[in-house]
Amino acid sequence: MRLEHLRAYPVSTGASRTAPAASTALDRWALRRIQQAVASAPIRFVLWDGFTLAPTDDLPVATILIRTRRALFAWLRNPDLNFGEAYMFSAVEVRGDLTALLEAVYRAMAEAPAPAWWQRPRANGERAARENVHRHYDLGNDFYRLWLDQELLYTCAYFPRPDAPLEAAQTAKMDLVCRKLWLRPGERVVEAGCGWGALALFMARRYGVRVRAFNVSTEQTAWARERARREGLAGQVEFVEDDYRQARGEFDAFVSVGMLEHVGLPDYQALGQVIARSLTRDGRALLHFIGRDRPAPLNPWIRKRIFPGAYPPSLREVCERVLEPQGFSVTDVENLRLHYARTLEHWLRRFEAAAPAVADMFDESFVRAWRLYLAGSRAAFTTGSMQLFQIVFARGGSNAVPWTRAAELRISN
Amino acid sequence: MRLEHLRAYPVSTGASRTAPAASTALDRWALRRIQQAVASAPIRFVLWDGFTLAPTDDLPVATILIRTRRALFAWLRNPDLNFGEAYMFSAVEVRGDLTALLEAVYRAMAEAPAPAWWQRPRANGERAARENVHRHYDLGNDFYRLWLDQELLYTCAYFPRPDAPLEAAQTAKMDLVCRKLWLRPGERVVEAGCGWGALALFMARRYGVRVRAFNVSTEQTAWARERARREGLAGQVEFVEDDYRQARGEFDAFVSVGMLEHVGLPDYQALGQVIARSLTRDGRALLHFIGRDRPAPLNPWIRKRIFPGAYPPSLREVCERVLEPQGFSVTDVENLRLHYARTLEHWLRRFEAAAPAVADMFDESFVRAWRLYLAGSRAAFTTGSMQLFQIVFARGGSNAVPWTRAAELRISN
Repeated sequence: MRLEHLRAYPVSTGASRTAPAASTALDRWALRRIQQAVASAPIRFVLWDGFTLAPTDDLPVATILIRTRRALFAWLRNPDLNFGEAYMFSAVEVRGDLTALLEAVYRAMAEAPAPAWWQRPRANGERAARENVHRHYDLGNDFYRLWLDQELLYTCAYFPRPDAPLEAAQTAKMDLVCRKLWLRPGERVVEAGCGWGALALFMARRYGVRVRAFNVSTEQTAWARERARREGLAGQVEFVEDDYRQARGEFDAFVSVGMLEHVGLPDYQALGQVIARSLTRDGRALLHFIGRDRPAPLNPWIRKRIFPGAYPPSLREVCERVLEPQGFSVTDVENLRLHYARTLEHWLRRFEAAAPAVADMFDESFVRAWRLYLAGSRAAFTTGSMQLFQIVFARGGSNAVPWTRAAELRISN
Repeated sequence: MRLEHLRAYPVSTGASRTAPAASTALDRWALRRIQQAVASAPIRFVLWDGFTLAPTDDLPVATILIRTRRALFAWLRNPDLNFGEAYMFSAVEVRGDLTALLEAVYRAMAEAPAPAWWQRPRANGERAARENVHRHYDLGNDFYRLWLDQELLYTCAYFPRPDAPLEAAQTAKMDLVCRKLWLRPGERVVEAGCGWGALALFMARRYGVRVRAFNVSTEQTAWARERARREGLAGQVEFVEDDYRQARGEFDAFVSVGMLEHVGLPDYQALGQVIARSLTRDGRALLHFIGRDRPAPLNPWIRKRIFPGAYPPSLREVCERVLEPQGFSVTDVENLRLHYARTLEHWLRRFEAAAPAVADMFDESFVRAWRLYLAGSRAAFTTGSMQLFQIVFARGGSNAVPWTRAAELRISN
């Protein structure tokens, strides 16, 4: 690192109302500690008075400006939580490409060993699950309509080609899920966590199945029911505003896209039990979820501000807690991590275009929080800090599984 | 069960030299205990004097004739080991379809909970690994030539259609492995456990890569080297008669087909380390192995007579011990269990045709042991007692992975 002292650095805009005193030796020591934690990341750090730590060798990908002493020491104390807090409330500013900055941070952190003290799994009982969901998914359909695709799919898309439009990629994702589940007309499907209902309606319309779809979000369920009614699918798709654990009856397929992240490790066995009691003898199941290469905590700021109660599991944790206890047999796993990075690129672009409207709807700190969350997620998928797994499985010993992947990809051998 | 007493049952042929005394009340109690352990399997049991236990409701799929009191009580004491022993030495005979019988047994056992006392993993140090391999793979190339395909592929084939010939399915398997590994001309590949060298030569010939292939079997290595020389590939493929843990240098791909079953849990971490140190930054790896839906012991008779030191792991065990400690990222998993059942069907048919020649080469008990092993393996794959997993993985954060499965299946999107 090369040390600079840039008196001319522009610090006049932003949150701090009174200019803080010039940085002290202690302030600069604190900044060096922060910089050392991501030593290999080419980032320029600047304090409120222009004091600068810059990378020696590389051009910086971005500059982080820390505006207040309070933000500096809060960051030092708990970087995982307080970088986000400070960014959200403009006590920290980023100049340059936010995603590139966060990618550099993820790569630098991957070189350091993960802390051992983190793992305190929390159970999400039905009440907690409801509260967690309400905090995120009931922000208002109007908000999500500003930057999601028109069908309001809020999960990883599948891009047949990297340059496919988002809408086409979301449709391709739904189709991929249906083909992996080997759906046939007249079959019964249960969906756990159905969002605004796009997949449930797609399965009914394109694959001729009957769907019972669970969701604890009031806003989403109302939207989905209205859409089913409008499209004449209300007789074929039933949207149930309830916890998926309330599902009763037998189904040919169980599907859950983007819900497992919100279940929490202690409830995995119960999820496995629900799937086991819901599937017919030759039923198939698909879980689509954000995961990890190995167990690691979700960033505490994301847990606090964006996804309370969320935890992305490793493949091993899902095998150990959901599948093995029920004797399920894994037939297929695919990792679509880079497709989620691309999905987030689309969302982020649309979100930025809608930022003024979002600020009117909430406030500037909300815009900043969501910008950080979307850019951080994109960086996590690009750098491999997070994965996107689709797991397909069946009852042990069921031979009613596709012979090869040819059907999944619609080719004939 | 309906009890019959068939005096006329033919017991005159076979191993017992002197006719044993008529069955006693204790003998019949023992037979009932044996029958109760697989109560739901439609099997007829017959003692040496014709005493019979037959299924009440179903037609029996086969009849098991127990010829001696010694075999009866040995079976009762340790069924997993001693059924195989008694069958092998003709103290037990099977009338009817052996595979169907074993499938019924596997299904009946799947309904009973697995015993908890089994798990005593054994480490296979390099010396033990060598001894274990010699006992199985050095039975003589002439023996395997009698019933394997002409390229001597002794692992699960991949049948594009269920009725494909075995030779075509073995070629398709090698091609599938190469496409999953995304091999490109000029790349370097290391293979751990290369059998008679067919895959190594195929990769070099069809995909233009350079291969270093490890095998501790003397007979197999000699065969593979001779073949490489004859086909003019000796400059491109190096067969090393050594443990794969001796591999040094960097490779673009690591592949192992049918070796992990012989590694043993305690050595999984070392295997992960070998892969981690062998792969380039953007290298890919593929493990193809017999596995389980959840941890379970390998049948002790198979361990004693066929595969000393073998253990088929669950997906979770591989994730936990091979992949997670090295931070590998799983990109793809496929379960080819039914393809192995089909492969074994082919092998069993060829083996039966060659049985007289095998008996000349060894003896009748050897023929019976291998018949039981092949039929039992086929039943295990048909009933889902065993799985065949192909796992593809890369270093965490490597983005040099195929965008979709289209390339794997040679289609354009």
